[in-house]
Amino acid sequence: MSARPLFVVAGVGNSSGTGGASAHRDDLTAVSLLSLDTTVALISRNSDSLHKFAAELKTGETDAAAFPVTDYNYKEVQGAFRAVRERWPHADIRVALFNAGFAVWKPFLQITEDELDRVADTNIKAAFAFSREAVTAFQGQTPDERGKRGTLLFTGATASLRGNTTTSVFSSAKFALRSLSQSLNKEFGKENIHVAHAVIDGGIATDLSKSYRGEEWAADPDRAISPESIAKSYLYLANQDRSAWTWELDLRPAHEKW
Amino acid sequence: MSARPLFVVAGVGNSSGTGGASAHRDDLTAVSLLSLDTTVALISRNSDSLHKFAAELKTGETDAAAFPVTDYNYKEVQGAFRAVRERWPHADIRVALFNAGFAVWKPFLQITEDELDRVADTNIKAAFAFSREAVTAFQGQTPDERGKRGTLLFTGATASLRGNTTTSVFSSAKFALRSLSQSLNKEFGKENIHVAHAVIDGGIATDLSKSYRGEEWAADPDRAISPESIAKSYLYLANQDRSAWTWELDLRPAHEKW
Amino acid sequence: MSARPLFVVAGVGNSSGTGGASAHRDDLTAVSLLSLDTTVALISRNSDSLHKFAAELKTGETDAAAFPVTDYNYKEVQGAFRAVRERWPHADIRVALFNAGFAVWKPFLQITEDELDRVADTNIKAAFAFSREAVTAFQGQTPDERGKRGTLLFTGATASLRGNTTTSVFSSAKFALRSLSQSLNKEFGKENIHVAHAVIDGGIATDLSKSYRGEEWAADPDRAISPESIAKSYLYLANQDRSAWTWELDLRPAHEKW
Amino acid sequence: MSARPLFVVAGVGNSSGTGGASAHRDDLTAVSLLSLDTTVALISRNSDSLHKFAAELKTGETDAAAFPVTDYNYKEVQGAFRAVRERWPHADIRVALFNAGFAVWKPFLQITEDELDRVADTNIKAAFAFSREAVTAFQGQTPDERGKRGTLLFTGATASLRGNTTTSVFSSAKFALRSLSQSLNKEFGKENIHVAHAVIDGGIATDLSKSYRGEEWAADPDRAISPESIAKSYLYLANQDRSAWTWELDLRPAHEKW
Repeated sequence: MSARPLFVVAGVGNSSGTGGASAHRDDLTAVSLLSLDTTVALISRNSDSLHKFAAELKTGETDAAAFPVTDYNYKEVQGAFRAVRERWPHADIRVALFNAGFAVWKPFLQITEDELDRVADTNIKAAFAFSREAVTAFQGQTPDERGKRGTLLFTGATASLRGNTTTSVFSSAKFALRSLSQSLNKEFGKENIHVAHAVIDGGIATDLSKSYRGEEWAADPDRAISPESIAKSYLYLANQDRSAWTWELDLRPAHEKW
Repeated sequence: MSARPLFVVAGVGNSSGTGGASAHRDDLTAVSLLSLDTTVALISRNSDSLHKFAAELKTGETDAAAFPVTDYNYKEVQGAFRAVRERWPHADIRVALFNAGFAVWKPFLQITEDELDRVADTNIKAAFAFSREAVTAFQGQTPDERGKRGTLLFTGATASLRGNTTTSVFSSAKFALRSLSQSLNKEFGKENIHVAHAVIDGGIATDLSKSYRGEEWAADPDRAISPESIAKSYLYLANQDRSAWTWELDLRPAHEKW
Repeated sequence: MSARPLFVVAGVGNSSGTGGASAHRDDLTAVSLLSLDTTVALISRNSDSLHKFAAELKTGETDAAAFPVTDYNYKEVQGAFRAVRERWPHADIRVALFNAGFAVWKPFLQITEDELDRVADTNIKAAFAFSREAVTAFQGQTPDERGKRGTLLFTGATASLRGNTTTSVFSSAKFALRSLSQSLNKEFGKENIHVAHAVIDGGIATDLSKSYRGEEWAADPDRAISPESIAKSYLYLANQDRSAWTWELDLRPAHEKW
Repeated sequence: MSARPLFVVAGVGNSSGTGGASAHRDDLTAVSLLSLDTTVALISRNSDSLHKFAAELKTGETDAAAFPVTDYNYKEVQGAFRAVRERWPHADIRVALFNAGFAVWKPFLQITEDELDRVADTNIKAAFAFSREAVTAFQGQTPDERGKRGTLLFTGATASLRGNTTTSVFSSAKFALRSLSQSLNKEFGKENIHVAHAVIDGGIATDLSKSYRGEEWAADPDRAISPESIAKSYLYLANQDRSAWTWELDLRPAHEKW
């Protein structure tokens, strides 16, 4: 009997955003790939919140566990991913989602060397470590019924496509992440490993953004992106078969000016 | 009682490709939007083949009809679309797909003025006429449960993103079509009209491409794009809700070099 | 004795803009390629204004002549270019600049079929005719000291890179033109024919734009693009040697928000 | 009497490439901006070679000095740039060129964490430090006759625009650098600081590339990019006035397939 499939996500925040929605069982039931019996591995900072979310997910048929990191960087993310694989050594990872990110919007001259380091550690180096572990895992798996060894997803942003006056450091990191996803798509497609990148172009209705943009905004699906809607698109990407899969798509609310 | 929803597609060829797969009821049942009771309106050249395909689709619960054009150009496509609306005056158009295209791969100096005209008529002017009719129809409709008045889809190609040595005229037209889709997305998003563009980057397993690339290629989902897989992505786009919809995605087979 | 080199420009307007500045002898002396003895061939509408400008240019060492067209389209531009070559059968064309364009900024549904035709005729079909004549001429010439058979330049715009709410038709045509320039660069580079595209991203201080944006704006080089500055960049492109030449550059004023 | 203008370049290698050509007086005389009396500050690794090159440049009217770094990283490049400014406290920096780069072409899974760190240090963090020092210096200067406080140039590559199978880490860094240049262009244009990015798309005829691609290739200007030709384009960018300046251009040899 084969082990239950595994969904690994890095970057869950307080679970109110994209990472949380992607992991949540309510959404899982709505799609074919991540069914109730998919095991969820959560990599994120904030150990308390993460363990609580894992407990919440772990009901009935679904298994889930938290793999907290102190900070996002190469070593910690590598360690967390390896702990996931040790926890469920026989499970196939069907989807790995790198949703972590450290965002800084600041005039260039106000950015400190420390912030630059942290952006590079979180958005670039942690992403490389996560990708290396995911790809290595995928290579050891047999293709599923869609002809795929696994799907590696990255969360991008408006800043992935365009530098701007307050995004010199953030945009640089998001450009780098986008390039990584493209290189990996090209390098590992021939091994039936699917790598995709989603450009989230608008405000996501997380607890944090609700706190400063207001409940009214967050409740308006014409203006605020629902994390569940992003999650659906991620699962759609994971569901694409090998005959026609996507490297990149953009996602924005209907009334977004762009 | 409201009329059944309507799916309008321009560019069906001999029905073995993207247009045909998008219209076919077998695929319709696989997705939530285009269910068995969706009426299908087919706009294309080759009247005989088109009527035959309409008859094939028109079984059981599904209604379908052919609206042939002699050539793709502004006037003919406008006329065909208006005939569709006269045929089912009370039906809401949920999805309109512009899949027509005239492709020329030739050294620049061998392209005739006539070919240039035909490319512009088919890929640009007919697309403008189709878009105008679709948008006008959408504006008169109430939003559906996804918060959308309708979805207008365009089929792009590798040549939509990159000019090359034998694509001077074809690529120009595909660039123009891509730009049209982006402008319309930006202009009509605020009216909850969803406009999307799919970049098909690889060979599609149509009868025509089978004839010169062979059955072996066409049967290999790692190398040939299945029209059904494209159709699924189109319906996914149509199913996206207004909170997070896509302007553009690319689709290619797993082993495609790009 | 070899004939004087030839500069052919299509799109001169009332000579106050890019086309005029590129042709004007005062600028020519500032650069090495277009020296005082370069002959200037002007293709444009508005026969009176064009002949007057040609007379103005034709002083001292410089020869110049007007080749008016009634409208920009394939046949007329082809005819005008061929008349240029008949007028100076032994002259090498060093630079051919396609600067013509018909711009429409309008909501999509207000664009008439006639405007669509005119945009396609001017921005696409006339450009194809001009390119064909230029490339054919270049092929018959020996490379100059820069290792080039000739330089074909295209004037692009912000709308060349991005569709927007009022640019559905204009942007489509500018995307098409950009693609044409890229395809031609790739196809004819190996014959040492240089094709380049300049994205003019901002308002040019022509008489027309002065009339609605004001003299103050036009006199501010931080906000208004001087036609002479564009002309200098065009001549720089023409001066690039075969070892490192440019397909595309953007040009905008220092304070432009983009 | 004002001090002589200053040209600062980071990334000189053994002086046979772009950095060297940009600094060399023979090229300086060919253009208006960097005349014989421009002082050259060289930041690079390989102290011996750098001091030797500085001595070579320092003849007659030209002053030059070496500011070696052990490795490219934030702290060292910051220190070197500050040493430049202390050396010539009254000189205006007219052009600052960041030409440093650490390139790795390798399958993704062979890239070590150490290589990832070094790529990030050289291509991203050192670039941020260099940019910060350059922009800060420019802000304290009065605009020159072109209306510019200074020009900051970045050397990009094919990998700046496109990830590929062996460029996962290199391309990520070059994407980041490109984004940095775009953000800085947008943020500091309104202070009349010009930031530009050149995409070098082809092999440059340096000593290193000669050693593995051969002298025949290096001597063929249709196939190999001459460092001098790049330098000319850099100086052209520096010479652009504020009315029409370029953020990005590409440079490739005539026969390059792209």
